[in-house]
Amino acid sequence: MLRVAIIGASGYTGGELVRLLSTHPDVTVTAATSRQHEGKPLSSIYPHLHQRTDLICTNPTSAQLAELADFFFCAVPHQAAMALVPGLIEAGRKVVDLSADFRFRDIAVYEHWYQTHSAPELAATAVYGLPELYRERIRPANLVGNPGCYPTGIILTLAPLLHAGVIDTRSIIIDAKSGTSGAGRSASIATLFCEINDGFRAYKVAGQHRHTPEIEQHLSDSAGHPVTVTFTPHLLPISRGILSTIYATLTTDADEDQLRELLHQRYHNEPFVRVLDRGEQPATQYVRGSNHCDIALTIEERTNRVILTAAIDNLVKGAAGQAVQNMNLMCGYDETAGLTQVPLFP
Amino acid sequence: MLRVAIIGASGYTGGELVRLLSTHPDVTVTAATSRQHEGKPLSSIYPHLHQRTDLICTNPTSAQLAELADFFFCAVPHQAAMALVPGLIEAGRKVVDLSADFRFRDIAVYEHWYQTHSAPELAATAVYGLPELYRERIRPANLVGNPGCYPTGIILTLAPLLHAGVIDTRSIIIDAKSGTSGAGRSASIATLFCEINDGFRAYKVAGQHRHTPEIEQHLSDSAGHPVTVTFTPHLLPISRGILSTIYATLTTDADEDQLRELLHQRYHNEPFVRVLDRGEQPATQYVRGSNHCDIALTIEERTNRVILTAAIDNLVKGAAGQAVQNMNLMCGYDETAGLTQVPLFP
Amino acid sequence: MLRVAIIGASGYTGGELVRLLSTHPDVTVTAATSRQHEGKPLSSIYPHLHQRTDLICTNPTSAQLAELADFFFCAVPHQAAMALVPGLIEAGRKVVDLSADFRFRDIAVYEHWYQTHSAPELAATAVYGLPELYRERIRPANLVGNPGCYPTGIILTLAPLLHAGVIDTRSIIIDAKSGTSGAGRSASIATLFCEINDGFRAYKVAGQHRHTPEIEQHLSDSAGHPVTVTFTPHLLPISRGILSTIYATLTTDADEDQLRELLHQRYHNEPFVRVLDRGEQPATQYVRGSNHCDIALTIEERTNRVILTAAIDNLVKGAAGQAVQNMNLMCGYDETAGLTQVPLFP
Amino acid sequence: MLRVAIIGASGYTGGELVRLLSTHPDVTVTAATSRQHEGKPLSSIYPHLHQRTDLICTNPTSAQLAELADFFFCAVPHQAAMALVPGLIEAGRKVVDLSADFRFRDIAVYEHWYQTHSAPELAATAVYGLPELYRERIRPANLVGNPGCYPTGIILTLAPLLHAGVIDTRSIIIDAKSGTSGAGRSASIATLFCEINDGFRAYKVAGQHRHTPEIEQHLSDSAGHPVTVTFTPHLLPISRGILSTIYATLTTDADEDQLRELLHQRYHNEPFVRVLDRGEQPATQYVRGSNHCDIALTIEERTNRVILTAAIDNLVKGAAGQAVQNMNLMCGYDETAGLTQVPLFP
Repeated sequence: MLRVAIIGASGYTGGELVRLLSTHPDVTVTAATSRQHEGKPLSSIYPHLHQRTDLICTNPTSAQLAELADFFFCAVPHQAAMALVPGLIEAGRKVVDLSADFRFRDIAVYEHWYQTHSAPELAATAVYGLPELYRERIRPANLVGNPGCYPTGIILTLAPLLHAGVIDTRSIIIDAKSGTSGAGRSASIATLFCEINDGFRAYKVAGQHRHTPEIEQHLSDSAGHPVTVTFTPHLLPISRGILSTIYATLTTDADEDQLRELLHQRYHNEPFVRVLDRGEQPATQYVRGSNHCDIALTIEERTNRVILTAAIDNLVKGAAGQAVQNMNLMCGYDETAGLTQVPLFP
Repeated sequence: MLRVAIIGASGYTGGELVRLLSTHPDVTVTAATSRQHEGKPLSSIYPHLHQRTDLICTNPTSAQLAELADFFFCAVPHQAAMALVPGLIEAGRKVVDLSADFRFRDIAVYEHWYQTHSAPELAATAVYGLPELYRERIRPANLVGNPGCYPTGIILTLAPLLHAGVIDTRSIIIDAKSGTSGAGRSASIATLFCEINDGFRAYKVAGQHRHTPEIEQHLSDSAGHPVTVTFTPHLLPISRGILSTIYATLTTDADEDQLRELLHQRYHNEPFVRVLDRGEQPATQYVRGSNHCDIALTIEERTNRVILTAAIDNLVKGAAGQAVQNMNLMCGYDETAGLTQVPLFP
Repeated sequence: MLRVAIIGASGYTGGELVRLLSTHPDVTVTAATSRQHEGKPLSSIYPHLHQRTDLICTNPTSAQLAELADFFFCAVPHQAAMALVPGLIEAGRKVVDLSADFRFRDIAVYEHWYQTHSAPELAATAVYGLPELYRERIRPANLVGNPGCYPTGIILTLAPLLHAGVIDTRSIIIDAKSGTSGAGRSASIATLFCEINDGFRAYKVAGQHRHTPEIEQHLSDSAGHPVTVTFTPHLLPISRGILSTIYATLTTDADEDQLRELLHQRYHNEPFVRVLDRGEQPATQYVRGSNHCDIALTIEERTNRVILTAAIDNLVKGAAGQAVQNMNLMCGYDETAGLTQVPLFP
Repeated sequence: MLRVAIIGASGYTGGELVRLLSTHPDVTVTAATSRQHEGKPLSSIYPHLHQRTDLICTNPTSAQLAELADFFFCAVPHQAAMALVPGLIEAGRKVVDLSADFRFRDIAVYEHWYQTHSAPELAATAVYGLPELYRERIRPANLVGNPGCYPTGIILTLAPLLHAGVIDTRSIIIDAKSGTSGAGRSASIATLFCEINDGFRAYKVAGQHRHTPEIEQHLSDSAGHPVTVTFTPHLLPISRGILSTIYATLTTDADEDQLRELLHQRYHNEPFVRVLDRGEQPATQYVRGSNHCDIALTIEERTNRVILTAAIDNLVKGAAGQAVQNMNLMCGYDETAGLTQVPLFP
């Protein structure tokens, strides 16, 4: 059994990693760290885990950290991650980092949107952990930067069309809507129940969200040239789920079935991507709790646009599930191990 | 006191008309019709109205209908409306029709998207009831077609920019999200609590929604030439509220403050339109229960696009409130009478 | 116009007072205080009030406070209230205090459940502001302690039965469920959207909630002897509303209609209490945004128990609305002024 | 692999059975029947099952039914079940019936609360499928009546106390709150999103709910004499989950820890029942999607009452999960097979 540690276990992603890993046949979680909750049972922070884990939160020194496990999920905020990860890599451990700190090859981009990077060389060697695009690079990696929640569904949806060159890369508009768990488990007025319930709004309008450069980097890779997008996030009164509605102008005469076939060919062997049939639409409630990404494609002939919709659970395919998928690749396990949950509906 | 009747009082719009009119100083609701609930107190269908109305649902013949009141709100579905309204107009009554039957000057457009129209001449003379655009036409009208819920916020937001010629009219993409009350109060599996709760989805993707031609008609009027838009509705797990996020490419060098000033100038005397300051964003929960339309404008310089967001309560400014506003204009009352409710938050 | 100040305007109750008072014909809000938000427009803290109030939050000294207005709503937490209120009363102002500090005649009870009281003599003279029970004492009062949200509906429901002596006063069990706005607008993990959404739980089980002695004091008054109750609060995934389900063993042979008649007789002249007919049940969504208290009574013959259900909006009849009702009585206005809102449904 | 059929697969329970059985190592679902959806893929009715099942809904004759599988989950409404089940039993099949038709040994009770029973002899031999109470009777059974959703948590909670004789059996009051999936997946106005959202109410007050006699039958068994209870169901604005708050007067001097120990002793070997520690409270969101029943016990010394709270997921431990647990016992599988899902939070 692989010994696995979760650094920063008290956030929603930490709880979700425990949930998923509890069904994984090849691993055992040996450590869960939390500065704030040191000494408390993890199940006292997450009562749904009562009797499902006996982990006690610890607060190890940097020196102790590497000894806790063979494999590490680092679920602390950006900037905190870059301080911890290099030591683990030096000690020969494998790491999936769920912050933004190891998602950018181009450190200048990172430093423009975030802050100074203290481990730029390591960041430049990290692999972006989107298995459906970069599986073969992930397998041998020691350090994987787990994608952001918004970028995951968006990149999966657009990459095949960009690769095929069928859309105008200057025309891409992404209108994305996320459940509130994406804001994390920190005390804040803005995400109180009464502020979110029965309401809806946009935020960080006009390219202010830090997922913008992450999306653009990988769309550019797929297109083979720089891509700039409009990306508008919105806040949904739901706990889990992201639905992105993506608009682009077509540069092809291919019809809807032919374009959908592009997606089918790209993903028909993928265990987690479900390309929907004509007339079907994804919904966040149909992927809840699962590692699926559901995608639909529709052509609007009146405007010569393609409209793509993609749904994921932001805590699973958008965070903890994808992290486990990356671990499976990095460790040679069945890629779906620990990730076979059927979506929970209703 | 003006005697007012509500035809089709059992839907959400009917209940909302009673709520609003109960605070109106100049009118009294003398009749509420419902074929299905004939003989029942309206408050048994809508328990929140207990002791706030003593109306009994009636089911009058067409001949009796015109005698019930001086002014009529017709809140029955399209096709049913076109059968009732002509008789009322002939009898000299004033009518605000809340269906789609009298929203289209061009009957061919109506018949393409809906069905054959049995009163096309009358429809051609009806006035589209968006007071902020068409106030002076509404005042003398006998028949007003009350706008659809989605078109209201969208047209109010785009009209000033189209009139000023500052956006590329081929570039407009409207990503709209509506609360579930927009689907009405009919038994259906698709809008059961468990199907909607904690979920989100798009529907009628790629120009299939019948509000598309309604939006295009009035945007074209504002632009002075035909405008085609991409319009994608989504279903929110909230009861009331529409938020539309609108994208367009700029054809001007004006900066964000200058464009916002266009909106301010257009709406600063309007009692119900609130143009937000830089950095603020509308939210459906901030207009809940009120007749407000909140609008924000942001320029994304990287892509040369303007991003507009607009929020209304679909049952108020998107239906019953706007209908009362139209009645006020048609009858010479203070335009805000019955409509001064402060939004209910949280 | 009476000049009114709201002390502690940034909480949900403060926002709600502004909403209600904006429709009051006899008053004008001249001051809104908030230490934390000094200098900010109230509408920047509560965007739903945009263009509906131009109040700027101030942070006056104690000396300045009394000059701000003729009438004060004190909406700061308990313990903070007892420091502010005495000065206002000495200066000849009238005050409705919405904290617990002036709800208890018996200071020993207060000090047992809360903490030492710094103004016990003043507290002993304050009037408990439940108008349906204590209207004539409220009229001449200078200081009214506004009831807690849970006690309001519970006392209104039980008082007539206790007064009539038809239930066993040792048998009362109150199972109450509140919306989350009752927890206030402070940053906290426990009331984050994701912690509350799609969930339900009890809290402060077994008489730990501080509303217990408040309930018991007034039930004892109605009964004429000490009453001890079991009171269990629960947290609902809704923003507004309390529904209490109350159980008691009957000591009468009167049937359901006769007992309901007791409630009807007690409340048929009350503008805000709605006693429901046989077979009807209150619901929080039917009182939302209004000052109503809806009550139903059912007898279970198998067990010889009466089951009472009562619904209020905790921010209106349970806080701000009742405070306005008290002000109306204290100032000689129409008791319903500012309180005629029809419930908002859906 | 055991061949399993789901009769009436289109309801929420049917979808949930497919979800749970998809992870079961010993069974394969070979048939899903639905009169209404004959010929359609089950995943078109339940899009969350897309690519997780290739079942096509069938509508077999009674004669064909028994050939479809070795084991049957009958998930049709009561009265429909009693027409199907006898044929299956005669054909030598094993059946878990999820309706009320085979829950009552005493047919007179069934016929009083439901309607005439067409297979009373068979009903009298069926075993009530609450494994924690009746495990040894379930193992050899061919026909198990799966408990109702409300009774499950309530009986599990009260049975040990009744068996120990520590509560007054005339004093039991059960205030239960259920998520809306308990109302099923049929078109209805009463369970539309807008009717339920942001609201709360009681229903079937005063012993009108048909789960009352089911609860009383098994509490009486545990007590050893007839028990009558007050049972009030309420409707929560959540999809899944039941929380029951139960009140009873103590007849013992045992303290809280001693009484809790009764529960611990009774359930510490049970894989699905989690007895919470002092100060902890169950919540529906902490059992969501799992087969757990979480129970807390608190003594209120002031009133000499014990207050018990119990949470289950009504679709899992309250329906499909318990049905699978029964199948596991009837077929000799590991009792937790297919039921190891960790609760989904948030």
